[in-house]
Amino acid sequence: MTHAVPVAPSVAPPARRIRRLADRQVVDRTELDRLLDGQLIGHLAAVHHGEPVVVPMAYARVGDDLLLHGSTGGGFALRAADERQTVAFAVTALDGVVVARSLFDHSMNYRSAIVYGVLEPVADEPAALDALSDRLLPGRVAELRASTRKEVAATRVLRLPIVDVVMKARAGGPSEAADDGEDHAQWAGVVPHAPSWGEPIASGLTPPGTPLPDSVAALATDSRPA
Amino acid sequence: MTHAVPVAPSVAPPARRIRRLADRQVVDRTELDRLLDGQLIGHLAAVHHGEPVVVPMAYARVGDDLLLHGSTGGGFALRAADERQTVAFAVTALDGVVVARSLFDHSMNYRSAIVYGVLEPVADEPAALDALSDRLLPGRVAELRASTRKEVAATRVLRLPIVDVVMKARAGGPSEAADDGEDHAQWAGVVPHAPSWGEPIASGLTPPGTPLPDSVAALATDSRPA
Repeated sequence: MTHAVPVAPSVAPPARRIRRLADRQVVDRTELDRLLDGQLIGHLAAVHHGEPVVVPMAYARVGDDLLLHGSTGGGFALRAADERQTVAFAVTALDGVVVARSLFDHSMNYRSAIVYGVLEPVADEPAALDALSDRLLPGRVAELRASTRKEVAATRVLRLPIVDVVMKARAGGPSEAADDGEDHAQWAGVVPHAPSWGEPIASGLTPPGTPLPDSVAALATDSRPA
Repeated sequence: MTHAVPVAPSVAPPARRIRRLADRQVVDRTELDRLLDGQLIGHLAAVHHGEPVVVPMAYARVGDDLLLHGSTGGGFALRAADERQTVAFAVTALDGVVVARSLFDHSMNYRSAIVYGVLEPVADEPAALDALSDRLLPGRVAELRASTRKEVAATRVLRLPIVDVVMKARAGGPSEAADDGEDHAQWAGVVPHAPSWGEPIASGLTPPGTPLPDSVAALATDSRPA
């Protein structure tokens, strides 16, 4: 699953380049965007007092940036941004379990991207908030009033440029050879794994019979988490 | 969603204790185990050359340990273990999207645990490998021959004790009040989100008509990723 087109120019230190040469690396921007656009949560890692910290965060890809959402004053993402510390943001999709004829050859199909960089403030915070909302629930922004100044002030969006990226993926069935000594009368293959949306549940204040907003109704046929 | 029973004795430095007092914290071991047992992949964060690194890893909870799987010589997990570096391992479940009447009040329902500690070698590597396999595909170990000495030698399992943990969760509908100025004629609520398993796909070498192993057939009714 290695492609010819580089994701982006690398500014990685040597240790990172070593990982770039590793097995299962993907260097196709279309594949990268499909992964980034197919998940809602990533894991942000930073260093605090010399020790690693990691936290799940909602994000949205907009062009060549990842937008990360954090409440004002909340968490180490903001601190890392203020300190201009390099962070690592991981987005992973588990696509299936690979069932083989030996325990050793069992595996998982997955796609994983790690974006390294320095978190930056966004130029237009209301627009970034709208982008994050529409990523969470496509079409929702148009269904509601604009965020108030107070609401915008109470949130902070950070931008991580998609420049230094390592993407890896595994796809397909188990590694198997006809002469590897395993019992080929046994079943082997892949069990696909994907997120799915359930039936919407109305809140207590929603009047009975209120129709679903289009944005919510569309989730039922959403194919983002591919 | 705060409970009374501590997860485990804390050995956290001050910076970590601050996070323990934060909103949405969970301190119930049953809830922690339900999260840890309901996911297949976590994200391991460490520090390398002063910068953060993070990578997705398969894991299994066995009692009060997380077992993490890595190929021999592969990756920074092994290096962090050799250096007795503190690492952070994050497990996150996205349980739903919270739909509100203002963009600002949109949210996600989730459960997230971060386990901090030093990775240790396991005492019984074959048993740990079996535990990891049976976590990935319950019952699979009994269906296959034991791993060979060569196979065991080619893998390495690390153990992260579940001692220093921060768990957070959000559940339920949107924050809403009858007098908050929003239009309560609109729908608000939650759209549940959960992983699901697809139809198993046989590999090329599987003879047509080969029945599914019980372990694979059971995945269709698997409720682990709750």
